[in-house]
Amino acid sequence: MYHLTCITCKTVYKPEPGRYLCDHCDALHGTLEVIYPYENMIVNKEFSKSLGMFQFQKLLPVSSHTPLDDYIGGTPLLRFDNVFNQNVLLVKNDGMNFSGSYKDRASIIAINKAIEEGNDHIFCASTGNAASSLALLNAHTDIKTTIFVPKKIPEAKLAQLMVAGAEIYPIDASYDEVFDISLDIGLEKKWYTRNSAVNPYLLEGKKTGAFEIIVQNDYVVPDYCFVGVGDGTIISGLCKGFDEFYTLGLIDKVPKVIGVQAEHACTLKKVFEKKPYIPIFESSETIADSISVGNPRDVIKACHYLEKNGGKLIAVTDDQILSAIEQLAQTTGVFSEPAGAVTLAGLLKLQGNEIQPDDLVCLVITGNGLKDISAVKLQSVKTYSKDEVYDYFEKRLK
Amino acid sequence: MYHLTCITCKTVYKPEPGRYLCDHCDALHGTLEVIYPYENMIVNKEFSKSLGMFQFQKLLPVSSHTPLDDYIGGTPLLRFDNVFNQNVLLVKNDGMNFSGSYKDRASIIAINKAIEEGNDHIFCASTGNAASSLALLNAHTDIKTTIFVPKKIPEAKLAQLMVAGAEIYPIDASYDEVFDISLDIGLEKKWYTRNSAVNPYLLEGKKTGAFEIIVQNDYVVPDYCFVGVGDGTIISGLCKGFDEFYTLGLIDKVPKVIGVQAEHACTLKKVFEKKPYIPIFESSETIADSISVGNPRDVIKACHYLEKNGGKLIAVTDDQILSAIEQLAQTTGVFSEPAGAVTLAGLLKLQGNEIQPDDLVCLVITGNGLKDISAVKLQSVKTYSKDEVYDYFEKRLK
Repeated sequence: MYHLTCITCKTVYKPEPGRYLCDHCDALHGTLEVIYPYENMIVNKEFSKSLGMFQFQKLLPVSSHTPLDDYIGGTPLLRFDNVFNQNVLLVKNDGMNFSGSYKDRASIIAINKAIEEGNDHIFCASTGNAASSLALLNAHTDIKTTIFVPKKIPEAKLAQLMVAGAEIYPIDASYDEVFDISLDIGLEKKWYTRNSAVNPYLLEGKKTGAFEIIVQNDYVVPDYCFVGVGDGTIISGLCKGFDEFYTLGLIDKVPKVIGVQAEHACTLKKVFEKKPYIPIFESSETIADSISVGNPRDVIKACHYLEKNGGKLIAVTDDQILSAIEQLAQTTGVFSEPAGAVTLAGLLKLQGNEIQPDDLVCLVITGNGLKDISAVKLQSVKTYSKDEVYDYFEKRLK
Repeated sequence: MYHLTCITCKTVYKPEPGRYLCDHCDALHGTLEVIYPYENMIVNKEFSKSLGMFQFQKLLPVSSHTPLDDYIGGTPLLRFDNVFNQNVLLVKNDGMNFSGSYKDRASIIAINKAIEEGNDHIFCASTGNAASSLALLNAHTDIKTTIFVPKKIPEAKLAQLMVAGAEIYPIDASYDEVFDISLDIGLEKKWYTRNSAVNPYLLEGKKTGAFEIIVQNDYVVPDYCFVGVGDGTIISGLCKGFDEFYTLGLIDKVPKVIGVQAEHACTLKKVFEKKPYIPIFESSETIADSISVGNPRDVIKACHYLEKNGGKLIAVTDDQILSAIEQLAQTTGVFSEPAGAVTLAGLLKLQGNEIQPDDLVCLVITGNGLKDISAVKLQSVKTYSKDEVYDYFEKRLK
């Protein structure tokens, strides 16, 4: 089947219940990765452009047990000609995922794994999307959900949590602090964890976006793939997904993965710039709440994966992100939350330098704009009386 | 190809640009329906469970011209066993449509029709979803979008409109008044209309949800199909879709369509209760903004279609709707806006009377809960300091 390997010391572990991290390394260096016996696997170009992520069962560490599984992933890969000075632009729109974010891909893996291991309680710390995803996707199962989030979570994400009936602890603390609190409590209670980087299986869900980009583009490999970066698990997932398809002979190159961070929440970028990779802790501040992370939990894995991939990390300003939200919507119709629109801001920053018009670029939109509308200035809209609107159009009120 | 027939006097019209309504009947009685030469058509069980609505091209009045077309419709039909006292419950989740609502099915038809007819400007009046759908789906084309909405549109829908860059007129008036204002202005300006009931092609998009319910359930026909009702176009579309599949021999019965309205916005129900159908105008008041309609524009068509279908209209209270939002999310994971959750409130109302546990029931969820979070009481959530959350779990702060 598969085994688990420490990202740093390479110790191999059996995938047993309760096995999250390496026994020999600290939490940041000791994240585990799921390794399949690729050399013995036969995977053909057998996949559908429109099915969900469980079609990749051969490359997943868990089977399907819930009625939602078939409807997670399988989000559109939109294709636009001659936009933003690119001959072709691909937009992977995970705002159309079940709960409106890319996090559904990881949550559904965690839920199915919890079912297989016989757990009756699952928890996570989250900036919002992972939590709302877990709460909604898990609502139908018999497993109890406990959620730890920063108090300043966007209202729409809080609404998702509340309506799903999850046990919620909004804490007056940063995401990084909430993460530590959740682990202190959840692991002592022996609940199953859906925390980034701790649970090695989450990344297996997150890699399926890469599989879909390749399959939905007829196995034509993009030159560049842009994605927002917080904890570093999604970017690691994308790198691993592309790499697995390459290892299995389904593609003959991988896209360069470009991780985009917010200027004042770019700890991972700083760590990646100097080898050996030394984790640092910072505070973070950005309107892109989903990637407002100062202590990225998958920092070491992301650095290793990105180095192997040949990609890099860049940072953009909050103003560039806000502008990118509007530009993306007005050009493609895709309304993205800030952490998704960073990808367009990143593309615009690299155009003219390494990125040329004939490069095939894919933007990964990780969250729906409806999840955080604070980025849109609603106050600026003018309202009208009935008379005013008729007058405006130079027509009398009948 | 197809022709247009007046729903009341049966006058037949050629589908020419500018032809919206019957010349001989008033606007409510003179809505047109699109009639195909069914007797000469061969349609097999040739459809995919996962493709979008343009796979039904043979039964659509327009071809595909935009890069989004393939990604509209094709939303999940979720299947749950033993929930809400039904042996099997189907949930058609159009909250996962491109802009988060069922209205995308009509908007994409209107946009493609506007392209085919060479229009450079399209408009609509809307309670919110039709407008945000039109604005986002049309953002990529060269056609200008003008939107008329009531001032009290939910914030998330306004955010979608603003980010899409549409020309927006929020008016201090009811939806019914806004509808009339928009027609006065839009038709004089000779803009293309995406207004319910006026444009006969919208319903052709809205019928595709019915096609998908049948195809995705392996041509096994539900006994009952519940849907929220405002103007009456979606329910007409569902009835027509089921009827067309029946006429073409793809199914041997149709589901009974149950339209659900809010107690203080149920004009259509009142009209349907007495023949001949006489339109009445009322004020409307409900938290389900998408179906807060006092002067339903497709009233006559909806009554005729519903009578032929064998279905009926029922009304539920706002409290029942609010409760249904939570029950639906906590049982299926689907977070619906109020106008979608009315379907569950309606089912619960009819259970024990005409609806039995072994009846196969389908709920049509027409909008994502993220589009209107005012129905969720966010103030009621308790927040914690770091110490409080540790104390709560009887564990000291480290």
